Amino acid sequence: MTTEVDRLIAGLSQRKIRDLARAITLVENGGPEGLELLARLAAGSSAGGSASRCEVIGITGSPGVGKSTMTDALIAAYRAAGKSVAVLAVDPSSPFSGGALLGDRVRMQSHSLDPEVFIRSMASRGHLGGLAAAAGQVLRVLDAAGFDVVLVETVGVGQSEVEVAAAADTTIVLLAPGMGDGIQAAKAGILEIGDVFVVNKADREGAQSTARDLRQMIAMATDGSTDGSQSWLPPVLTTIASTGVGIDEVVASIGDHRSWAIENGELERRRRARAREEVVATVVGMLQTRLNEQPLSPELEAVAAEVATGEVDVHGAASRLWKMIGR
Amino acid sequence: MTTEVDRLIAGLSQRKIRDLARAITLVENGGPEGLELLARLAAGSSAGGSASRCEVIGITGSPGVGKSTMTDALIAAYRAAGKSVAVLAVDPSSPFSGGALLGDRVRMQSHSLDPEVFIRSMASRGHLGGLAAAAGQVLRVLDAAGFDVVLVETVGVGQSEVEVAAAADTTIVLLAPGMGDGIQAAKAGILEIGDVFVVNKADREGAQSTARDLRQMIAMATDGSTDGSQSWLPPVLTTIASTGVGIDEVVASIGDHRSWAIENGELERRRRARAREEVVATVVGMLQTRLNEQPLSPELEAVAAEVATGEVDVHGAASRLWKMIGR
Repeated sequence: MTTEVDRLIAGLSQRKIRDLARAITLVENGGPEGLELLARLAAGSSAGGSASRCEVIGITGSPGVGKSTMTDALIAAYRAAGKSVAVLAVDPSSPFSGGALLGDRVRMQSHSLDPEVFIRSMASRGHLGGLAAAAGQVLRVLDAAGFDVVLVETVGVGQSEVEVAAAADTTIVLLAPGMGDGIQAAKAGILEIGDVFVVNKADREGAQSTARDLRQMIAMATDGSTDGSQSWLPPVLTTIASTGVGIDEVVASIGDHRSWAIENGELERRRRARAREEVVATVVGMLQTRLNEQPLSPELEAVAAEVATGEVDVHGAASRLWKMIGR
Repeated sequence: MTTEVDRLIAGLSQRKIRDLARAITLVENGGPEGLELLARLAAGSSAGGSASRCEVIGITGSPGVGKSTMTDALIAAYRAAGKSVAVLAVDPSSPFSGGALLGDRVRMQSHSLDPEVFIRSMASRGHLGGLAAAAGQVLRVLDAAGFDVVLVETVGVGQSEVEVAAAADTTIVLLAPGMGDGIQAAKAGILEIGDVFVVNKADREGAQSTARDLRQMIAMATDGSTDGSQSWLPPVLTTIASTGVGIDEVVASIGDHRSWAIENGELERRRRARAREEVVATVVGMLQTRLNEQPLSPELEAVAAEVATGEVDVHGAASRLWKMIGR
């Protein structure tokens, strides 16, 4: 008997857009069919001996720096090089739609008739076990569909969002002049995760000084912390993504970083770290599920009320719950 | 025998700055003394029947909107009203210092000689159990020290950071003209958490249109989702925090929101939700500790390697670990 999962796996291998979209929805929902699909994909890749070959590129930066425009420009560049491209755009949930905010995805519709381009939005909230686990699972589906390149675009500078972009094979940190100087970049916590820095909107005042500040901060950060020959010095490029200026250089730098990462074992190290985080996040999700079910959920509500009035301290309350988990 | 915890509790009740700083460090480190301190504080407040009375105000927004300047202005306003003020500034860890980035805390040194003002930075990374749990525990120490007002300032628009600010009694969302229009605010995921919206840098071009856009989006979001009489319509104010313009109105709106929240049971509801999240986060922290210790840690590394090569799916790996936890 052919199940829906059988059908989806067949559809994925032919990269049928509808099956791909459906498979991602199943995986995002986290139900039994989604779990079966993931297990089957893992079994299949193990049997075929094919580890992931798709190139995962993270793009992050503050709101307003032009991430969507940059993603659009990179899609065009990779398509021109004959590569298939998937985009996973992680958006904070909109309070209105309850789902991902698709506002400026509209621009990417220039690629909507290209069967070698697939664009998916994902809300950053509401994933049991966290955003990283959810994104990791969607990446596995995109990988199974055989895309050459997956662009993971995360809005914001937050901890969870930055972690998702940082889990990529190569992470691009986008800035814009006028979004603040180097200190603001450091505040955003993104200096340490960038493999390639891009100052976008380079036609605006202050672009060159922003790039210069960044280079200085990167040099400071790199000095003494690396062993020289093996280290990667993140380049700082300038682009005008809306007109395509500088995009070729970004693509070249991504390629350089990838070659370096493969040669130095960094790619393998990152993929293992990513897998570790996904496993931990999934276990945490299992815990959260337990806390929201009988018999733990009423106990959680009871201790929360006691903690709120100050009768019990948080750690004491947590210990009481923890003891119930093993049973 | 007087232990260090005894001494710190005595020092806290007299609001001795050194003891306060030391107590927070102990709590942040999460060691046995920190846990004992929290348990003792809970026991003390329970014995004395004194639930938290300090007013917790969250301030959040994108980098560069002027959060530190606004915090500074609010400190001055509350001090002028005779209230003691503590600031908990949550910063992403700096890659250079390894700790919280103190760059623009320097400005707040204008209050550094005032014994009724206490300012503490806290890194947003590296807290087992998450940022919310860590911040919640520091809040308990500040509460025990009897501050009238605690300002929780979180940089960024990220999930974890926004959650911390949103867990306050009243949450102020700060924007600036030129940081993007309403869509950008919605992308930042901050529209739904603000009790008071403030467009800062109101002397810049576009401030009034940003405020107008916000009011429209808030009206849209509120329409139909509330029952009318009981609901709070978040005001949208404009300020120039650097010169103090509009700060009195912000303070008045915070007071209005507080009165409304007490009257409608919203304050109690929020404090209970905050306690619930802290308990969950602490249980998650316990799980993460277990995963990083024998006997689970080598198993985690082993399954992560298998997941990375695609031999095992993430859920299968997580299930294997989960079964070991109950033992």
